[in-house]
Amino acid sequence: MVIPSLIQHKRDGHALEPAQWSQLIREYTAGRVPDYQMSALLMAVVWRGMTPEELAALTDAMIESGDRLSFEGFGTPRVDKHSTGGVGDKVSLLLAPMVASCGVAVPMMSGRGLGHTGGTLDKLESIAGFRTGLTLAETRAQIERLGCAMLGQTPEIAPADKRLYALRDVTGTVESIPLISASIMSKKLAEGLNGLVLDVKTGSGAFLPEPARAIELAQTMIGLGQVRGCPTVALLTAMDRPLGRACGNALEVEEAIEGLRGNGPEDLMEVTYALGVEMLLLVGAASDAADARLRLEASVTSGRALEKFGQVIEAQGGNPAVLEDPSVLPQAAEVEVFRSPADGTVTRVEPRRIGQAIVELGGGRRTIEDQVNPSVGFVIPTKPGQRVRTGEPLASVFASDKKGIDTGLTALKEAILIGEKGRLMPLITHRVTADGVTAL
Amino acid sequence: MVIPSLIQHKRDGHALEPAQWSQLIREYTAGRVPDYQMSALLMAVVWRGMTPEELAALTDAMIESGDRLSFEGFGTPRVDKHSTGGVGDKVSLLLAPMVASCGVAVPMMSGRGLGHTGGTLDKLESIAGFRTGLTLAETRAQIERLGCAMLGQTPEIAPADKRLYALRDVTGTVESIPLISASIMSKKLAEGLNGLVLDVKTGSGAFLPEPARAIELAQTMIGLGQVRGCPTVALLTAMDRPLGRACGNALEVEEAIEGLRGNGPEDLMEVTYALGVEMLLLVGAASDAADARLRLEASVTSGRALEKFGQVIEAQGGNPAVLEDPSVLPQAAEVEVFRSPADGTVTRVEPRRIGQAIVELGGGRRTIEDQVNPSVGFVIPTKPGQRVRTGEPLASVFASDKKGIDTGLTALKEAILIGEKGRLMPLITHRVTADGVTAL
Repeated sequence: MVIPSLIQHKRDGHALEPAQWSQLIREYTAGRVPDYQMSALLMAVVWRGMTPEELAALTDAMIESGDRLSFEGFGTPRVDKHSTGGVGDKVSLLLAPMVASCGVAVPMMSGRGLGHTGGTLDKLESIAGFRTGLTLAETRAQIERLGCAMLGQTPEIAPADKRLYALRDVTGTVESIPLISASIMSKKLAEGLNGLVLDVKTGSGAFLPEPARAIELAQTMIGLGQVRGCPTVALLTAMDRPLGRACGNALEVEEAIEGLRGNGPEDLMEVTYALGVEMLLLVGAASDAADARLRLEASVTSGRALEKFGQVIEAQGGNPAVLEDPSVLPQAAEVEVFRSPADGTVTRVEPRRIGQAIVELGGGRRTIEDQVNPSVGFVIPTKPGQRVRTGEPLASVFASDKKGIDTGLTALKEAILIGEKGRLMPLITHRVTADGVTAL
Repeated sequence: MVIPSLIQHKRDGHALEPAQWSQLIREYTAGRVPDYQMSALLMAVVWRGMTPEELAALTDAMIESGDRLSFEGFGTPRVDKHSTGGVGDKVSLLLAPMVASCGVAVPMMSGRGLGHTGGTLDKLESIAGFRTGLTLAETRAQIERLGCAMLGQTPEIAPADKRLYALRDVTGTVESIPLISASIMSKKLAEGLNGLVLDVKTGSGAFLPEPARAIELAQTMIGLGQVRGCPTVALLTAMDRPLGRACGNALEVEEAIEGLRGNGPEDLMEVTYALGVEMLLLVGAASDAADARLRLEASVTSGRALEKFGQVIEAQGGNPAVLEDPSVLPQAAEVEVFRSPADGTVTRVEPRRIGQAIVELGGGRRTIEDQVNPSVGFVIPTKPGQRVRTGEPLASVFASDKKGIDTGLTALKEAILIGEKGRLMPLITHRVTADGVTAL
């Protein structure tokens, strides 16, 4: 295959043949197409987009580049959730044990934090000993035994995506709806799922702030899932402020455990329940939305979801004492309260600035190799619209030293704005299915 | 410098700072920016274009990456010509000795054929022994002695361009007016010229067939030359049919020698004279266009231009006997006449198809490493508009075996169309200067 001609063809706005995409990904994964040709082609894709046929071929080629999680002979339906990433988004930590304790298996494959958004793996690894690097065989065994596993992308799953993603990250070619969709769906479709729920964030802290673009991304991923035997549904949820109160790895684990005890912040629990309802409905594990909601609530009130989380932690080498005693989590050396600089109404709690500050404090990643300090972050109980008085505590900074406290306080001053009137997006704005978009 | 952010910035349609371009090219030439980042950035440039400030910074950075041909203390004005490439375009072979024998120095730095267009270096190297790889010191010495040297891009001139061009060639990022302009002008501006004439081809066989795009390219290059002390003028010339009759390396050398003897095809001589007039006028070596034309014609009729070509050939190690006896050039093993398949008028002689056939015959390059067979090609005295009768000889194929003859005859059948009415572009359509565009 003559790669420069393919690149030119795409560059000039034409579609490549599905067979060309398949061969290209095969050759690239085998190391026979150099990165400098692939990155030029990826930029041409950012420019020109992809037809549905091209996208399907790319996604399939990425799945075919690796193994699949096989559940042959295992009768329990499997469902997973994917989030496009946010600040304070610890939903997966609650949702996986809640859904699993409703009798549906959850092979939850997650990522690490990058940029201003956190990652489920980093959060889990703030629990001492927790091992996220399960093999496919270990994952299947644990799913059969507990109905739940929480792991990272294994080397066997979609290796082409792994290589392409690393290249996109350093060549300015991340921001493309077809490339994002193929990347996410190639991994999810290799998990052997019977259903998938997407949490597509919108608002200033989201990867795609515009609702129209978020809907386009949702529809693109739903299209890929639907025709590959994995019914897919998306909810658009608000990321114009952090979700819940805790932002930072260990702090979020603590908040998730509180949530599983029935004491979670209302916004966090609403998003978690809404996604959980979709998961149960997708695989027929509830008769309707109200039934699904009751089952999920019961998983919390009965303590079964918390117990399930404990079993998963123990199975993956973590210290289950964390459920009873959050002080076994890494603790920040310094904590300081941030107080309101004025009387008025909170107009903004800017999640992007908070997420960046977590990276500055050492709690996030600038590159994928960075080590994360799990103890740092923020607790921000304040939401836009809330009336506040000068000197009232609005948030806390958790840092490893006094310099970090200063960094955190500066970030809070920039992120939390006091004025006349607060704007707050509705928590869940749209539901997207293969049949269309419903505004909620 | 954070390369992914620069790429994103360009990708999103913003201009980079001139200092960022300078640093980027320095770091790339030093091997500190990987090819996969540069190729993604180049594709973003193809997409978004460049501002005049960006283009100036890129061109200067490419010049600064290497040495310049220095003519300090040498009083004779220097002028060069650059062609964007065509089929049958042997103008340089005539023009350099003609202008040099009018008392203007011509340090002519040329390229090799690539794709369907030929290259002056390949043509010269069909003369046994001719050495095109002169050093800068050798070039200066020969210019001082003979007023003319015909050489390839030396390793000292614009090495950044050399590396970038090789990358663009394999990543579908050649077709960009700013990138083409920076590539050409960085080399030409390093030659220490007092003037530069551009032969920008238009029509189906040209690199940019559309006149509007050809004019844009001309104006972009003129803008770069003008502000760097190298007054630049462009002529747009027709490449809707081959120039002259001979197409193929040794065949074109033979035709060029015929031209220097006063027996060249009319279209070839017209383009050569027109470009030569601009060269003499640019450095004040003639009082007006009519005077310049007379001087150039006299260089031919007096035999001085032919004599100069002989001196250059001898100085660069070639066999000057070629001037008296073209049979010392490599000769094709097989020659066959192509005859008109019908009565009618020649409607097309498609240069692109002819150029591709020369590559198929082994007389051109698919990659820059390919060896060229200098003896193969075509002689096509036929022009669009000419009335022909069935069986009348229209062209000859020169090949190394019978299979090549078949290839050549097939190409001629596809390239030379017989119909009702022939269309022929005027030979020279526009003159472009810093002051504007004149349709001729």
